[in-house]
Amino acid sequence: MADDDDDVTLFGFWASMFGIQCRLALTLKGIEYKYKEEADLFDQSPSLVQLNPVFKGIPVLIHNGKSVSKPVCESPVILDYIDEAWHNKVPFFPSDPYGRSQARFWADYIDKTLYVPGKNVWMKKKGKEQEAARKEVVDGLKAMEGELGEKPFFGGDKLGLVDLVLLSYSCWFHTFEMFGNFSIKAEAPKLIEWVRRCMEQESVSWLLPDPDKVYASVLQCKKKYGLE
Amino acid sequence: MADDDDDVTLFGFWASMFGIQCRLALTLKGIEYKYKEEADLFDQSPSLVQLNPVFKGIPVLIHNGKSVSKPVCESPVILDYIDEAWHNKVPFFPSDPYGRSQARFWADYIDKTLYVPGKNVWMKKKGKEQEAARKEVVDGLKAMEGELGEKPFFGGDKLGLVDLVLLSYSCWFHTFEMFGNFSIKAEAPKLIEWVRRCMEQESVSWLLPDPDKVYASVLQCKKKYGLE
Repeated sequence: MADDDDDVTLFGFWASMFGIQCRLALTLKGIEYKYKEEADLFDQSPSLVQLNPVFKGIPVLIHNGKSVSKPVCESPVILDYIDEAWHNKVPFFPSDPYGRSQARFWADYIDKTLYVPGKNVWMKKKGKEQEAARKEVVDGLKAMEGELGEKPFFGGDKLGLVDLVLLSYSCWFHTFEMFGNFSIKAEAPKLIEWVRRCMEQESVSWLLPDPDKVYASVLQCKKKYGLE
Repeated sequence: MADDDDDVTLFGFWASMFGIQCRLALTLKGIEYKYKEEADLFDQSPSLVQLNPVFKGIPVLIHNGKSVSKPVCESPVILDYIDEAWHNKVPFFPSDPYGRSQARFWADYIDKTLYVPGKNVWMKKKGKEQEAARKEVVDGLKAMEGELGEKPFFGGDKLGLVDLVLLSYSCWFHTFEMFGNFSIKAEAPKLIEWVRRCMEQESVSWLLPDPDKVYASVLQCKKKYGLE
């Protein structure tokens, strides 16, 4: 179990869904932490490379409690760690093994269907490849709408692991729509209602970046790297 | 916690590392289970599609205890589930949250660096793409050799999560070597020593397929699908 005098630091990047997932989890648990913004994901700081020599990327969590003082890398691993290390504070995983397995399955499904396909929607030129990616994103969102069903949140009456992970992508929805030329409200209207409900929870909504800023940043990034 | 009168079934495919990982975990825990071999991964049985409608693939674990009777899909999720549901039997995850995070990190690293790159080594024609995949596999194996260090097993003195996952790929090493034209003994000799130590543990070694059979099956598969 974590100590009360924990010293916690998270390395992230403001628009990265993986960093956002971890910040949402720490915030939901009420864990105080230092946040270190990585200025340029294409030119990593030496301290980040030292902390995550394998992938050289964010997010990295450093937890200097009495007993542990080593970095944890990769967002799914960090999310498990946060819930286990601070188990007594607001659990966001279900308590039973089967419930936990289902939450992990859908959290992984979201990363699989929205990260690389989502990137291909905004990065690739219009054409067969972009169209396939668009379809994958839309199918993924529809599947998540089906999984939500009539529940207010994926976690039931409260935010759970799956909510945190999908919420980290919600600030990218506008970017997906603009480049993919589709409307999530038309394809998966209940998901948009779910985003609205989540955003009413001020405890977490304040740290989600403005979707317009994410879109503007993507336009700038494409220009900078000649991806237009 | 799982009941003593559990009814457990695993859907797998003899040469699939993902199915093998789950069988190794069940075997290590001493859990009796029914094994259902999926005859053709390219033409799934209707029962598999019904159990795993999202990915329509193996492995799927079905655990019909007194309280749970639903399928668990995707090998990393199944491995977590097995350790949590039968927590009182031979734990193969470390007991502390930090140790668990590191085991999950390396298990995921193995799947990332050996599955798709490994497939590209045997599936792609010789050339730039196959060469890049070969490098990724060799680098991954070297990194794992570094992570093993001087320990007899990744789990320390006994088999742990990382051992089970890497062991599931060991029966593919020969195939990677034959198509990639390299020697793991030359590139990462300590890993070959580790395989030998693992294979001395009859409790798990009996269920690993013969590397020659895996290679023969790959040759047959390439011929069947015109991938030569």
